[in-house]
Amino acid sequence: MKVTLRTDVLTNNNKAAEFNRELFQNTKTLVMNLMSSPGAGKTTLLEETVRVLAGKYRIAVIEGDLATERDADRIRAMGARAVQINTHGGCHLDARMVAAALGELDLDEIDILFIENVGNLVCPSGYDLGQKHKVAVLSVPEGNDKIPKYPQMFMRTELVLLNKLDLLPYLDFSVEEAKRDLAEINPKSNLLPLSARTQEGMHEWFFWIEGAYLKWLQQ
Amino acid sequence: MKVTLRTDVLTNNNKAAEFNRELFQNTKTLVMNLMSSPGAGKTTLLEETVRVLAGKYRIAVIEGDLATERDADRIRAMGARAVQINTHGGCHLDARMVAAALGELDLDEIDILFIENVGNLVCPSGYDLGQKHKVAVLSVPEGNDKIPKYPQMFMRTELVLLNKLDLLPYLDFSVEEAKRDLAEINPKSNLLPLSARTQEGMHEWFFWIEGAYLKWLQQ
Repeated sequence: MKVTLRTDVLTNNNKAAEFNRELFQNTKTLVMNLMSSPGAGKTTLLEETVRVLAGKYRIAVIEGDLATERDADRIRAMGARAVQINTHGGCHLDARMVAAALGELDLDEIDILFIENVGNLVCPSGYDLGQKHKVAVLSVPEGNDKIPKYPQMFMRTELVLLNKLDLLPYLDFSVEEAKRDLAEINPKSNLLPLSARTQEGMHEWFFWIEGAYLKWLQQ
Repeated sequence: MKVTLRTDVLTNNNKAAEFNRELFQNTKTLVMNLMSSPGAGKTTLLEETVRVLAGKYRIAVIEGDLATERDADRIRAMGARAVQINTHGGCHLDARMVAAALGELDLDEIDILFIENVGNLVCPSGYDLGQKHKVAVLSVPEGNDKIPKYPQMFMRTELVLLNKLDLLPYLDFSVEEAKRDLAEINPKSNLLPLSARTQEGMHEWFFWIEGAYLKWLQQ
């Protein structure tokens, strides 16, 4: 009984994800699903991304949070369109929530859409939102053991942004160990060390986005 | 249908929680359920707690993680008994998992049992494990917006340990703002700023544990 319901929930989610994916394909909107622990710095990363890339691409953001409009307000303050989803206790976004939020955006006017998932290193990884890319954000203060301890997340993402690199001098964190752990769990994934706060390494992330967008257009 | 099942799941959990609670009462074992985001420092905090208090109390720890035995190994290295639960993708501990783990512990030989929940600021807060106290750990690098953005967690905990205070000089974090936000969401809760790394403020946490233990014995 429980298994049936669970499968059913995922099937409905997958139907909605297919609906979203077709819409993104038809409107040529490149969509990325950003996932991380609470406080890994997804919103700051998106603020900087909007600041640097908004002159070149039309960017919008869907923000997922249990409560408050804070993150959408921060993105709007940077000049990009943002839609806030409040899950009211729900631990992840699903494709139907995203489909509903799309009603507030004109996808024909958007080149790149970032979806900032609920801060949670567990639940969001299991739900397809119809995105083209799944990106995980890990931050230096969270410690070196997160990749082996939360394998489901890192198995399912193709890029890991290692944020808050500016805190490296004050903490015991080995970037090399993180790269080795990631290579072991998901050899196809890449780790980009950066700091949204100091800009260090951010050009690599922008370069990755530009490459992904070019590839997307050529599909 | 979905609602019925959900209620049923919680009812079963609550039955197991009552079973655990009765066992803890009968054996006079004080039990605390520690919850936080991944990487907030729960294990380091417990290592220090075991190091300082193990001479005075008989302490054991139940560790909840998606994967690996790492955290239980860290606690064992400090000389306390530890049982590792692996949820294999599950986003929180439930009372039945704890009941099963209790089979590996002799509660008559334990004064204080810490349960370190899965690193997740959302799901664990909804599940009673039969514990006496629910304690949240928040860390300075996670940022000031976590209390209003994850209200369910902070509404349901009576104590918030604000860890990694040693990183305060390198980050924009206001302890006063955190205290105000917590008072607004849960006036009965207290915030203790500390650093498990430098020991700053840890005596307040030990003092709180000793007070809770004395009260528990007098019940």
